[in-house]
Amino acid sequence: MSARAVVLLSGGVDSTTTLAIARSEGFETYALTVAYGQRHAVEIEAARRVARHCQVAQHVVVPLDLRIFGGSALTADISVPKDRPLEEMARGIPVTYVPARNTIFLALALAWAETLGAGDIFIGVNALDYSGYPDCRPEYIAAFQALANLATKAGVEGKLRTTIHTPLIQLSKAQIIRRGLELGVDYALTTSCYDPAPDGRACGRCDACLLRLKGFAENQSPDPGRYV
Amino acid sequence: MSARAVVLLSGGVDSTTTLAIARSEGFETYALTVAYGQRHAVEIEAARRVARHCQVAQHVVVPLDLRIFGGSALTADISVPKDRPLEEMARGIPVTYVPARNTIFLALALAWAETLGAGDIFIGVNALDYSGYPDCRPEYIAAFQALANLATKAGVEGKLRTTIHTPLIQLSKAQIIRRGLELGVDYALTTSCYDPAPDGRACGRCDACLLRLKGFAENQSPDPGRYV
Repeated sequence: MSARAVVLLSGGVDSTTTLAIARSEGFETYALTVAYGQRHAVEIEAARRVARHCQVAQHVVVPLDLRIFGGSALTADISVPKDRPLEEMARGIPVTYVPARNTIFLALALAWAETLGAGDIFIGVNALDYSGYPDCRPEYIAAFQALANLATKAGVEGKLRTTIHTPLIQLSKAQIIRRGLELGVDYALTTSCYDPAPDGRACGRCDACLLRLKGFAENQSPDPGRYV
Repeated sequence: MSARAVVLLSGGVDSTTTLAIARSEGFETYALTVAYGQRHAVEIEAARRVARHCQVAQHVVVPLDLRIFGGSALTADISVPKDRPLEEMARGIPVTYVPARNTIFLALALAWAETLGAGDIFIGVNALDYSGYPDCRPEYIAAFQALANLATKAGVEGKLRTTIHTPLIQLSKAQIIRRGLELGVDYALTTSCYDPAPDGRACGRCDACLLRLKGFAENQSPDPGRYV
């Protein structure tokens, strides 16, 4: 029997590629999506498409409305920045930062992993893609893994060691897309936009769209995403 | 202006005492309760009573149904153990353990704290009360604090240091209740039972009830809780 892994799946390029990598490594994959009240809720539909297409063993969508706390352009009534040059993206943490998001996501993944008897959690964080989020850095991930191994019954009883896998952490967006194309990922299923149109089409101008478009361009591969 | 603190509030003896301690230390308190699908949902009503009585600055109840993962007597269809002697409670982690619960709760507290500009989080964990939960131990809390200071934008930008306060961690249940009584806590507002009757009265026989009753008895103080 294959080892089980919980894969955090948002429905974007990074998490979809991460899921493909986990499968290529032989894990039986359990996809976890958090419906956190993001304004780009269309990505939850993308996550469902990807999970179905990748034939995950189970896909759980957890409703957890982080708008209750506010504090981010993705969850509160703050405008998503558009048309920012890469140099500006590289210069600090943007308003699209959601407080403690990855800590919450990893905590939920840890809970499910313990229930499943899974010692492996995959998250598509990336330290190089200009987002500047603190909870995407290697030292943050190492701290979470240390915490995880103190946090659970299965860990304390010596039955399960938790490993947080971050296969994309040192890759550029172009390298991520190249890896995904090699693995046969269908990026038409994914969505990346922070501020999509009501019909789901991407804006093409937010940080996430700009980085995605650049990644495909650098691979001389057309982006199959739908843009306004 | 007083410093703000987020206090995790379940509505039981420990978290209510913790809230009273945070107030006595001069913090402006923000109470956070998670409605996680616990079978003892009556405790959410207790948390509302306590928060109102203690005049917290704000009380947020986050719906997050952990039954989606299962795996605990508190959230799945497993019987709550009754009438266990203390020696048996001391012997390992019980089925009432909820996978990664405190990690999830602290992650949510961290998210709200960052939004509020609060560097202080209070949690009423206890390493001595026979519960044996891994995520109540000092080394676990230290690991979460280390994580918290790597996880947030405010932390990375040097604007906020996070401290996880665990004022009860080395106290017995009797000592916790004594401290609360000194601070004027009205324990009639609280509920501790894992398996209450439909009308909200405590069973008097689960681990939580037995430890609570013992704590009041050791203080020669009547437990104002309602029992079947």
